[in-house]
Amino acid sequence: MGMHVRSGDGPTLTQDFARFIAGLRFDDLPEKTVHAARRGVLDWLGCALAASRHPTLDRLIAVLRENGASPQSSVLARRLKLSALDAASVNGQMGHLLDYDDTHMGGVVLHASSPILAALLAAAERSAVSGRELIVAYVAGFEAGVRIGQSSPGHHAGGWHLTGTLGTFAAAAACGRLMKLDAQQLTHALGIAGTQAAGMQQNRGTMCKSFHAGRAASNGLLAARLAQQGFDSSEEIVEGKRGFSRIYSATALPERMTAGLGREWQIDGNGHKPYACGVVLHPAIDAMISLGRMPGVVAERTERVALSVHPLVVSITGNAAPASGLHSKFSLHHSAAVALLDGDAGVAQYTDERAADPRVIALRGKIEVSVDERLQRDQAAARLTIDGTTHEVFIEHASGTVGNPMSDEALRTKFMANALPAIGEPAARRVVEIAGTLERLEDVRTLIAECTG
Amino acid sequence: MGMHVRSGDGPTLTQDFARFIAGLRFDDLPEKTVHAARRGVLDWLGCALAASRHPTLDRLIAVLRENGASPQSSVLARRLKLSALDAASVNGQMGHLLDYDDTHMGGVVLHASSPILAALLAAAERSAVSGRELIVAYVAGFEAGVRIGQSSPGHHAGGWHLTGTLGTFAAAAACGRLMKLDAQQLTHALGIAGTQAAGMQQNRGTMCKSFHAGRAASNGLLAARLAQQGFDSSEEIVEGKRGFSRIYSATALPERMTAGLGREWQIDGNGHKPYACGVVLHPAIDAMISLGRMPGVVAERTERVALSVHPLVVSITGNAAPASGLHSKFSLHHSAAVALLDGDAGVAQYTDERAADPRVIALRGKIEVSVDERLQRDQAAARLTIDGTTHEVFIEHASGTVGNPMSDEALRTKFMANALPAIGEPAARRVVEIAGTLERLEDVRTLIAECTG
Repeated sequence: MGMHVRSGDGPTLTQDFARFIAGLRFDDLPEKTVHAARRGVLDWLGCALAASRHPTLDRLIAVLRENGASPQSSVLARRLKLSALDAASVNGQMGHLLDYDDTHMGGVVLHASSPILAALLAAAERSAVSGRELIVAYVAGFEAGVRIGQSSPGHHAGGWHLTGTLGTFAAAAACGRLMKLDAQQLTHALGIAGTQAAGMQQNRGTMCKSFHAGRAASNGLLAARLAQQGFDSSEEIVEGKRGFSRIYSATALPERMTAGLGREWQIDGNGHKPYACGVVLHPAIDAMISLGRMPGVVAERTERVALSVHPLVVSITGNAAPASGLHSKFSLHHSAAVALLDGDAGVAQYTDERAADPRVIALRGKIEVSVDERLQRDQAAARLTIDGTTHEVFIEHASGTVGNPMSDEALRTKFMANALPAIGEPAARRVVEIAGTLERLEDVRTLIAECTG
Repeated sequence: MGMHVRSGDGPTLTQDFARFIAGLRFDDLPEKTVHAARRGVLDWLGCALAASRHPTLDRLIAVLRENGASPQSSVLARRLKLSALDAASVNGQMGHLLDYDDTHMGGVVLHASSPILAALLAAAERSAVSGRELIVAYVAGFEAGVRIGQSSPGHHAGGWHLTGTLGTFAAAAACGRLMKLDAQQLTHALGIAGTQAAGMQQNRGTMCKSFHAGRAASNGLLAARLAQQGFDSSEEIVEGKRGFSRIYSATALPERMTAGLGREWQIDGNGHKPYACGVVLHPAIDAMISLGRMPGVVAERTERVALSVHPLVVSITGNAAPASGLHSKFSLHHSAAVALLDGDAGVAQYTDERAADPRVIALRGKIEVSVDERLQRDQAAARLTIDGTTHEVFIEHASGTVGNPMSDEALRTKFMANALPAIGEPAARRVVEIAGTLERLEDVRTLIAECTG
């Protein structure tokens, strides 16, 4: 459609960013970044497989089948193929469904892999794509999602679910790179993606929360495919006068989109969750698990627990009496109670049954929460009283954060526990092997085939 | 998923609204409202048919076909069927593509029929739906789109394209009513729709602008179908703490959603466009056409034109040198020039060729625009100087607004001009006949069949 009206001459920030993505090569990536990508793929596949039988997905799949989706791309662990756009929807929702997938906390709260990898796998199934190409596209998606988020610092506080909004940009950039779009097409892919960016925090605790991740995957892939066909958009979707940074955020810092490009890699800051719930809860869970391991502490005989947390924890997860498994993933009281009772906060601790468990409910009532402004987001303190004795713990960096990452071994253990029920041990072991040497994989469909169930 | 956390007891505003929609019957509607629906269907079909061959749609259709869309619902005037969700996308974009479709200006700037009717026709093609059922669903969609917009008074100024955002709610409510969802399912349909609401004004003048309408249609239909399957959402998507009215608008008046429900019908305030461009331009176009008809006025010999407009006109359409046909639909200078030259501002005045026409460009340069704060949105004033003589005109109410509506006869004439090239005269005449007695139609597929080309 020729040129678009904008302020100033020369390329826009979005065009600069798109040119970088279009030119990105595997050899540009440090080993550390490639390693983060290997870890990301393995962990995300496990989180998706663990959720693959969830009844929420049955409802989505029923609608997509009624719509006549043709068999192009695999739904994980369901021996089912849907159209590429629909498979991206289902797998994206699957990956985020248990709130167990990775989290980037660098100026955003973004679960980037669900939208990015669901879109990339759906696209990769249609033609041979190498492990290296997948890694480059995955890294590109992280650059888009995190950087556009950092360009819009008021975005999370504004009430949006960033995995939906930023995830759409991330999936579009990733797919655009995989499809080898040129810089102009990538600019339009970002413009078409941004104009579909959606997902409200109002829907936290409902089926819509993970739906956001699936829609971001599908809409991002759609954006890249439209751009490939010559569909156009604004060329300054992020920085424009009515662009993303202005209308989705009370403050705009669009220059963050390109600052340090090629020197810092956003996927390096990705965190993996040891617990299957909202990431802000993790420091408190660490604290409760530590308390539970102390000599003399017995969960049922606990008199009271005083828990101090960062203010954001209470604003996001202040629901003291969650009515369902999905809601319990955003309940500080529930999470603290199950962590003390079970010494864990995995998939089994966030079912509808556990949310209604009388032992959990009784313990919930003994937990007193207070906000401490001095705490960092990845810190928590707890004091437990039992038989007149007080036990205290302070968590400096929650496990799974950049300051205290899960080890490769812990990630493999998490993956095996997640994957086993869905695809069995032999396939799960082969996925660990393939993901661990992802840059040597000739065709990503080999990996997908192990995950179809 | 059981109950959701919210402030207060009893039904939420969104639930109250959903209950109203679920209970709405044809006999509840005054004749005036039914008449507005008949007019709306006829005019929207014409606008869609006029755009049916536009190359933008070729690009969208190519992507949807690559995705393996199955033949369920008709794309208008293309002898093509896609899946219901994909047909809704294409027809919704088609309806809005020429910026010729209806506009509701009651506290919103909403082109409601493109998302609503594209979604309803796609849904209606799958099973027998009567004209009365279509009318009730169409009216329900207007109630949702306009009322949720009025609940969020800062929404347009915030930078969103309301036909995308509010259109998603509108399409979901309309489809939910057509599918006879109960009040709880309709509440969830609105929640699933709202969490997909998107579309940025940043994309004005690009292919994405009309894409918003198509996506709203498709995503709204998807929301209704998911809700029918038991997919859930927040039960206060509009009024909640992080609901639509709070995060998409600087001010929130959620009680507007239900005030006067059943007494005022929003479709009654729908306006139909005599000109194929942004509605804010219409008063200025009226003024230029009037000047062009005055004795002694010859467009090419004009020395200068002083045009006074409402401030919003300049902020939305201040592009004095549009580079394409789509951009020219949001150019005050272009619109004023073609209106004076041709005495019209229809489809033929907004092509790529006319945007580059030297006669238009020469005349554009003679037009001086000033903002007059005292003018209403539907008013404009113009003073033309030629051969030392000055001609003046003041437009009190632009044609096509509620204060100066297009007559039924003028709407039929507009429809015939729009429809003829796409479906030929016999079919166009039959559509006029069917739409004029829509409440007597037994099966909406009879109407669709006339529009398949």
